[in-house]
Amino acid sequence: MNRTRVVGILGGMGPAAGADFARLFVQACADRMRVLQIPVSDQAFPEHWLAQVPVPDRSTALESPGLGGHQPLEPMLQAMGKLAALGATAVAVACNTAHAWHGALQERFPQLEVLHVAREVAHTLAGRGVKEVGLLATAGTYRAGLYDQALRQAGLQCHIPEPEERERLMHGIYHGVKVGNMALAHDCFAGVAEALARRHGLSTLVLGCTEIPLALGAQRVVAGLDGLDLIDPALLLARALARRAYATAA
Amino acid sequence: MNRTRVVGILGGMGPAAGADFARLFVQACADRMRVLQIPVSDQAFPEHWLAQVPVPDRSTALESPGLGGHQPLEPMLQAMGKLAALGATAVAVACNTAHAWHGALQERFPQLEVLHVAREVAHTLAGRGVKEVGLLATAGTYRAGLYDQALRQAGLQCHIPEPEERERLMHGIYHGVKVGNMALAHDCFAGVAEALARRHGLSTLVLGCTEIPLALGAQRVVAGLDGLDLIDPALLLARALARRAYATAA
Repeated sequence: MNRTRVVGILGGMGPAAGADFARLFVQACADRMRVLQIPVSDQAFPEHWLAQVPVPDRSTALESPGLGGHQPLEPMLQAMGKLAALGATAVAVACNTAHAWHGALQERFPQLEVLHVAREVAHTLAGRGVKEVGLLATAGTYRAGLYDQALRQAGLQCHIPEPEERERLMHGIYHGVKVGNMALAHDCFAGVAEALARRHGLSTLVLGCTEIPLALGAQRVVAGLDGLDLIDPALLLARALARRAYATAA
Repeated sequence: MNRTRVVGILGGMGPAAGADFARLFVQACADRMRVLQIPVSDQAFPEHWLAQVPVPDRSTALESPGLGGHQPLEPMLQAMGKLAALGATAVAVACNTAHAWHGALQERFPQLEVLHVAREVAHTLAGRGVKEVGLLATAGTYRAGLYDQALRQAGLQCHIPEPEERERLMHGIYHGVKVGNMALAHDCFAGVAEALARRHGLSTLVLGCTEIPLALGAQRVVAGLDGLDLIDPALLLARALARRAYATAA
């Protein structure tokens, strides 16, 4: 009856974002069933496992690659191995910055597909005819050029905030979302988003850190951000994972 | 540094409730860290695994024990075995009705603690001095007497809705929450809640199915339910699991 494939979610970076990704995935599965005309029931969802494991800070590791660049990789490899043992055929990593290690994860586990969040976003936006976007992300994601590269390959231009604005985003992530101060986080993110969009005349912003939509994207109307299309990469990644889970059920 | 223990969540019953339980658990861990004066960071959360596996309908199995009473148990045992192999020392089952098989699960895996949602609720309410409650639940949970027994042992009286009201709850769960029609679900749940509370002069209602708070409890003020204390067992179970995870970190 249930012809879906087992999939995995590598989370814990942070744990709130991982749990939110599981919610988005469940919603994406229900949407997928409606498209495939499969009646929605508990038993029609694919088996999926959320691994929430402690992983050293990704941005810090990317700032000092000599000292700690390998540190986040080891626990991610261990959790990925356990997801593979559980039968996962595809895994989504619920953290943008962690995709700096995407190549190493995919190379070690050739038997499963490790989805790439920036490539999924670039592919989707190119399909919608978008030509340029602004990117809100962590220092680590900017440094690794994750979105730059994926967007450029898909023919899109990527604008990033000024250095002091990037620091303000990090402040909102670490002193806001990660410790539960959503009001502070919202102030930081909305201020930078508005300035970036106005400076370049943008209508599309990519919220390229899983923590940012938790404070900004949840409330669909953000003061001063009316008319802006806020792209939540986690949402697109969740939909991509649901497509993999139902690939054999169509 | 991180002296927490690995814990597991057995979900998929339904998947939306399982994902929501992971969110509640992450929040409960942050609260626990504040109590224990551990600085909240991604790395200070306990390793935890959410298993979302297809499990045959629990209420249906309890309605016809001869034909299908064993059916939900097998996939639950398999998932529990995998959680044990992942190192889980305690597991919460994110479904009230599934607790009808609690004894069988605990017996098969004596090396880990399977938490019992109704006992956690009964213990907490007794501690608050509550004497009687109303119970909104599935047909399976009423039939298995899960809350009745746990509440009685803790010295509380438990009132349940009339037969046609219980059918209305099942309608709200299966034709509301489980297929994404939250407005229908809310109507069903709020109507029965109000009638039950008024009939017995109750001030406390236990929302004894993980699907019910998804439609009712999220919005703290429910029309006609002002002044009623709505108890979400998933919230109390998530806190109990967080206490287990941090038991060795205090």
